[in-house]
Amino acid sequence: MTVALYPGTFDPVHYGHIDIATRAAAMFERLVVAVYDRPLKSLLFSTMERVALARQALAHLSNVVVSSYGGLTVAFARQQGASVMVRGLRVTYDFELEYQMALTNKSLASEVETVLLVTSLQYAFVSSSIVKEVALAGGCINKMVPAFVQVALQKKLQALGEVGSDKVKVVSLRD
Amino acid sequence: MTVALYPGTFDPVHYGHIDIATRAAAMFERLVVAVYDRPLKSLLFSTMERVALARQALAHLSNVVVSSYGGLTVAFARQQGASVMVRGLRVTYDFELEYQMALTNKSLASEVETVLLVTSLQYAFVSSSIVKEVALAGGCINKMVPAFVQVALQKKLQALGEVGSDKVKVVSLRD
Amino acid sequence: MTVALYPGTFDPVHYGHIDIATRAAAMFERLVVAVYDRPLKSLLFSTMERVALARQALAHLSNVVVSSYGGLTVAFARQQGASVMVRGLRVTYDFELEYQMALTNKSLASEVETVLLVTSLQYAFVSSSIVKEVALAGGCINKMVPAFVQVALQKKLQALGEVGSDKVKVVSLRD
Amino acid sequence: MTVALYPGTFDPVHYGHIDIATRAAAMFERLVVAVYDRPLKSLLFSTMERVALARQALAHLSNVVVSSYGGLTVAFARQQGASVMVRGLRVTYDFELEYQMALTNKSLASEVETVLLVTSLQYAFVSSSIVKEVALAGGCINKMVPAFVQVALQKKLQALGEVGSDKVKVVSLRD
Amino acid sequence: MTVALYPGTFDPVHYGHIDIATRAAAMFERLVVAVYDRPLKSLLFSTMERVALARQALAHLSNVVVSSYGGLTVAFARQQGASVMVRGLRVTYDFELEYQMALTNKSLASEVETVLLVTSLQYAFVSSSIVKEVALAGGCINKMVPAFVQVALQKKLQALGEVGSDKVKVVSLRD
Amino acid sequence: MTVALYPGTFDPVHYGHIDIATRAAAMFERLVVAVYDRPLKSLLFSTMERVALARQALAHLSNVVVSSYGGLTVAFARQQGASVMVRGLRVTYDFELEYQMALTNKSLASEVETVLLVTSLQYAFVSSSIVKEVALAGGCINKMVPAFVQVALQKKLQALGEVGSDKVKVVSLRD
Repeated sequence: MTVALYPGTFDPVHYGHIDIATRAAAMFERLVVAVYDRPLKSLLFSTMERVALARQALAHLSNVVVSSYGGLTVAFARQQGASVMVRGLRVTYDFELEYQMALTNKSLASEVETVLLVTSLQYAFVSSSIVKEVALAGGCINKMVPAFVQVALQKKLQALGEVGSDKVKVVSLRD
Repeated sequence: MTVALYPGTFDPVHYGHIDIATRAAAMFERLVVAVYDRPLKSLLFSTMERVALARQALAHLSNVVVSSYGGLTVAFARQQGASVMVRGLRVTYDFELEYQMALTNKSLASEVETVLLVTSLQYAFVSSSIVKEVALAGGCINKMVPAFVQVALQKKLQALGEVGSDKVKVVSLRD
Repeated sequence: MTVALYPGTFDPVHYGHIDIATRAAAMFERLVVAVYDRPLKSLLFSTMERVALARQALAHLSNVVVSSYGGLTVAFARQQGASVMVRGLRVTYDFELEYQMALTNKSLASEVETVLLVTSLQYAFVSSSIVKEVALAGGCINKMVPAFVQVALQKKLQALGEVGSDKVKVVSLRD
Repeated sequence: MTVALYPGTFDPVHYGHIDIATRAAAMFERLVVAVYDRPLKSLLFSTMERVALARQALAHLSNVVVSSYGGLTVAFARQQGASVMVRGLRVTYDFELEYQMALTNKSLASEVETVLLVTSLQYAFVSSSIVKEVALAGGCINKMVPAFVQVALQKKLQALGEVGSDKVKVVSLRD
Repeated sequence: MTVALYPGTFDPVHYGHIDIATRAAAMFERLVVAVYDRPLKSLLFSTMERVALARQALAHLSNVVVSSYGGLTVAFARQQGASVMVRGLRVTYDFELEYQMALTNKSLASEVETVLLVTSLQYAFVSSSIVKEVALAGGCINKMVPAFVQVALQKKLQALGEVGSDKVKVVSLRD
Repeated sequence: MTVALYPGTFDPVHYGHIDIATRAAAMFERLVVAVYDRPLKSLLFSTMERVALARQALAHLSNVVVSSYGGLTVAFARQQGASVMVRGLRVTYDFELEYQMALTNKSLASEVETVLLVTSLQYAFVSSSIVKEVALAGGCINKMVPAFVQVALQKKLQALGEVGSDKVKVVSLRD
């Protein structure tokens, strides 16, 4: 049985993640969606919240479990018996980083193979950053995330108020 | 009458911005230069300062107005009656982000078209980040910004002193 | 006598840096490894620590000196009598930034030439960010940095404890 | 009245082209679709055929004309009274070339401005090369080109038979 | 049982190919290495030769077969019962093309999933083009291909003599 | 004495080449401009013509010689006693190929170091392909090449007439 690990921060889970997880779940016997648990200040949702949202989003996939983890990703892969690490590729921008991490992970744990899946065209430009930025600005994100994520996001942003601006980078107006 | 919107943070306005605004103003009947007003902590100038500098820099263009805005960029475009969104392209590095935002904006407001103009060669590598970094390090920026922006930048950096280091990232020594 | 300057933050020095410095030292009569001294909050090591580690790492190269500097890199190059600025290229990702800085430096000091060396294949994907991230997560970094850097890194991370999380960005899980 | 020129080889016209032409036709008063007429041996269709297919594909746009041209693109732009040159961007891959041509054209005819439009997501990966390669291999291209282009392509490929292999590069299996 | 297809031209097979095939063979129950058989004039080896060399290179992998095929790659995947298409990624340069083909193949045969594997660092810059170019110039290719491929290449290049220059593009001196 | 080799096809030499050669000649004691002599059918000028044009273009640099060569570039470097190989970088597009060749050359001759120089901004987008394409289309190339190259190019294109179309690829209208 091939176990695959799909690691990320999932802050929050979006349709691009769901797309990759769905396809990986069809390809491998068991898929562990691994939510990185380090309390990074720049994340919007807590680890528990990110796990809960991902779990709800992937509940329909019977061979998928969602867990949080700390430390080295390949160490968690080993612990889960995963021989494959799955990552989604969106645009070229992602590629160098994924390449670098794949090679780093290979040198840290040569028995874990990285597999890159191409995100479907309709989600090719969705990212958690864009989701948060559009939501913060009051835009509609219903093509990017499921309804319950939308609700969670709006609650979170209201709760944070002005303070929230530290957690949502404006990536679209770089100049 | 085609109204075009040219959004950005303009922190501060530089010759690359002026180049794009000048060319867009020649192409469309009216150009709204839209300065994003969210009080981002990592910006050096306040919204009012950024608007004032951009206004002075573009005063010679009779069909250009400079306004600040909050919220979604496409919402402001709609409010201004703009059917076109103008963005300047500098180097390849910009392209994926612009592509992503163009597609995101298209899905948020399908009637607003994004138009990318190629920055003139002599400004192809100027960015607000580089301007601030060079100014902070005491370098000459007179080929990058008008004299009055240079003055404003020096005053601002002096006023901030050591504190300023948080607002000027050193991008050139990444390793 | 051609003097070359190799500037960076070296937070901390790794085998990729050592590779570039070694090759530059063979090509030019004198190499000044220049450690940027601005007290950037996001750096893990102090300027003094970064200089000390770099010095130890390059002690075997007789025509190399390590100095810290502030202000404009090209100004320090001039002060050191350097006519060449050396930079290492790792992956495509680096290139636009290096290109931009090379052109900016050229316009600031036309007599200083930038020379880009290609990092050796085995270090092509090593960066200070990856080194810190892997070390923080408890992974083995002995293919990336000399033993004494490894020790310094572990001490530093222990000393910082939870607080350290601000200084080590998790770059590998961007989503 | 702003006249825009949309130059290309259109061998053959596909939905990506139609998308760009439709949007440019909405933005400018008149659009001249300019089919390059040099008898390039590597093109599949003759200039007359390429013009005819493009004309049929764009017949619904009243302010669009399709013409062939020779010589310098900017010279044809001048002759047509066009102050704007339109190009479609698909993926990053295109960008450097478009940037280079925009700058070259600017230096050849400074009064002609290049405007880049972002191809819609569903056509972001369609190119004439891919269309021809898939058609040659017997694949279905009905999401890429209108039905009449499909027919023309099949006839052309049958007529060429084995000889045709010179005119359809296999781009997908580069290794 | 998951069958995977690894398509290419393999002109000739090199260590980068062998690396990818070895890892894919460990991940999936059966791997079909699919050699495209269209008699492309720009290929150096005939389809039969390319199949024979690939077969010899992969003889040690018991769950791998090597076949030639014509027509659409996804059609051959279907015929072989393959639900996965494997491709190796070398450098960024490859990525846009692979992305484009993955999306094209998805639209042609939605049940076939593309999986991208990252080529090992030591083969990250090996390509059939480079192999041929170095061999033609009399350079040593023993780190790039197995000894028997080296022999086959030298024989082939001798047989072709001057005529061979059409089949080996010089990619390294583009200017 | 450090001898540097600057290899290329120089078909024909342009201001970007002259820029790189001028700067390399200032940095190293002796520069050998190495014109690849294989009679490639897709080149416009013969080896002798390319050498003659490059010689005339660089006649003012006393420590530069221009030679043609065949075979492996690093073998010629060795024969000339060159320990450094110089290449010019124009845009990102170049980078992967240069990286690949630098690593390939390193593995073929570890004592020859590749040094990449950044082409000056005003020539950052000039290439031999663009020069030929613009000249063929009747455009003005006096900002791209010296007057005598312009004359040689016009003569050559007239002599070739229609036949010449095989030797000048139209790179600007890729679609």
